[in-house]
Amino acid sequence: MASTNDELARGSDILRSAQAEVMADIDRLFDRLLPVPHDPRAPLYEAMRYAAIAGGKRLRPLLVCAAGNLFHVDRSASLRVGAAVEAMHVYSLIHDDLPCMDDDDLRRGKPTVHKAFDEATAVLAGDSLHALAFEWLCDPATSTDPFVRGELCCELARAAGPAGMAGGQMMDLAAETSNFDLPTVTRLQQLKTGALIAFSVEAGAILARIPPEGRTALRAYARDIGLAFQIADDIMDVEGDEALAGKALHKDAAAGKGTFVTLMGLERAREQATALVDQAIGHLASFGDEAALLRAIARYVVERDR
Amino acid sequence: MASTNDELARGSDILRSAQAEVMADIDRLFDRLLPVPHDPRAPLYEAMRYAAIAGGKRLRPLLVCAAGNLFHVDRSASLRVGAAVEAMHVYSLIHDDLPCMDDDDLRRGKPTVHKAFDEATAVLAGDSLHALAFEWLCDPATSTDPFVRGELCCELARAAGPAGMAGGQMMDLAAETSNFDLPTVTRLQQLKTGALIAFSVEAGAILARIPPEGRTALRAYARDIGLAFQIADDIMDVEGDEALAGKALHKDAAAGKGTFVTLMGLERAREQATALVDQAIGHLASFGDEAALLRAIARYVVERDR
Repeated sequence: MASTNDELARGSDILRSAQAEVMADIDRLFDRLLPVPHDPRAPLYEAMRYAAIAGGKRLRPLLVCAAGNLFHVDRSASLRVGAAVEAMHVYSLIHDDLPCMDDDDLRRGKPTVHKAFDEATAVLAGDSLHALAFEWLCDPATSTDPFVRGELCCELARAAGPAGMAGGQMMDLAAETSNFDLPTVTRLQQLKTGALIAFSVEAGAILARIPPEGRTALRAYARDIGLAFQIADDIMDVEGDEALAGKALHKDAAAGKGTFVTLMGLERAREQATALVDQAIGHLASFGDEAALLRAIARYVVERDR
Repeated sequence: MASTNDELARGSDILRSAQAEVMADIDRLFDRLLPVPHDPRAPLYEAMRYAAIAGGKRLRPLLVCAAGNLFHVDRSASLRVGAAVEAMHVYSLIHDDLPCMDDDDLRRGKPTVHKAFDEATAVLAGDSLHALAFEWLCDPATSTDPFVRGELCCELARAAGPAGMAGGQMMDLAAETSNFDLPTVTRLQQLKTGALIAFSVEAGAILARIPPEGRTALRAYARDIGLAFQIADDIMDVEGDEALAGKALHKDAAAGKGTFVTLMGLERAREQATALVDQAIGHLASFGDEAALLRAIARYVVERDR
């Protein structure tokens, strides 16, 4: 799996330009999809825009576009699905930051939604983005094929619900008072962040009408980068820079929570993350040069914010 | 529009038996769709079951079944959609009851979810039911026709999001500090409760593949009963019995909120609700005896809990 320095530099260039494009496109799309109405709901839309526009690395929309590229999916379709999955991600950040959950004051370098607005508006802005994600997916503008739209909705619902993201957050709250072992922490993270990352990758193949049996390699890739992403997150929580991360760090240790770092040690966690990235790239062997962006993303997930 | 006493008595019988059946069927369906897992997510599922099972009048599933009956829709399909819309309704009750929203301790005669569990679990139980509503709709068990599933998801997302229920709740929070006039209160209620009631009625027609232009009468019926329902709710808030209602009453007056009663007066509000029910029943004129249940529901929405 060793890559030459030339390959790494080229991957890094591909990633930088693709990410910059996706970031600009998603901002534009959110701006268009979230017009502020001239009625008492205005603060709700302002809160959604505050949380959704001009923030974050847009990893999930980038994954949709990168996987869609493999199968020559129309970019505007990938971007719509990207906006839906990012709306789902942003809603989860808004709710996770609430005082009754992780009680965070800072997100993406600015005050969290309940700090900038109020708690009720934050709950409703999250709820609204949650519903809009499905509304955007179901729209014929996403795909003219109703089977495709239906499968996207179904998979996103699974990834977001109690068997996915919301279930993972529930486990994360329980982690503060339980001593979870490594398999349980792994499962927690597969639900909390892995499910939505896996959806993002698979969505590119769904848009291209690739049947489930043709998505095995992509699913394996997604599983590995999802886990590597979370191990990197736990490492960042220990040794990261809050200003670079744009959010509060060192919270897991303070809460006495079992993480990949506390359970494996910093050194083994770092090795494991690197091994998962190599393994993820290995799953893409059957794809040629058109998978260069997915390979670069795999390297990126363990190198963000450093 | 005048009905004979015989007709009224017959409608009342039809309603009582249909509602009892739907209540039992929805409880059974929730029990099957929400099995408690043997892992740290158990409290999340217990909270969903606590809120969803054995509570409420099941007006929305009853409307789906009643409208579906008009077009001979398979009952199991209507019940699945009924469970989805009821899950959406229950999620909204859980979130609306939160301390940062309406701060209610009692719902359907028992402690609210954040009182019986905790706030974080309540937020996540609501989020989970929200996602599950879409997962259940998208499943081929709901309809073998992907266009039908897609339209159901799309319409439910619209009814639940910022242009529907969540937007209405945002307006309701603003109502505490603004002096809304009658058109604004009407709009607020159309979003907050009307949109989901309208979805419930229209879903029966969507399941039967009735095109939008064939749903005009049902849409008009739904709009009228939705508004009558809310006017009756405002009347109940003034003169209802808390023990019968199973929730705190007299809150709107205490909050100085503009309601149909404060804006129209008790007498005119009562006349308006009755006129809307007559008008709703009038929209069903083209349907024969098979619309008897929908007619009985129209009368029921202004007579609940008295």
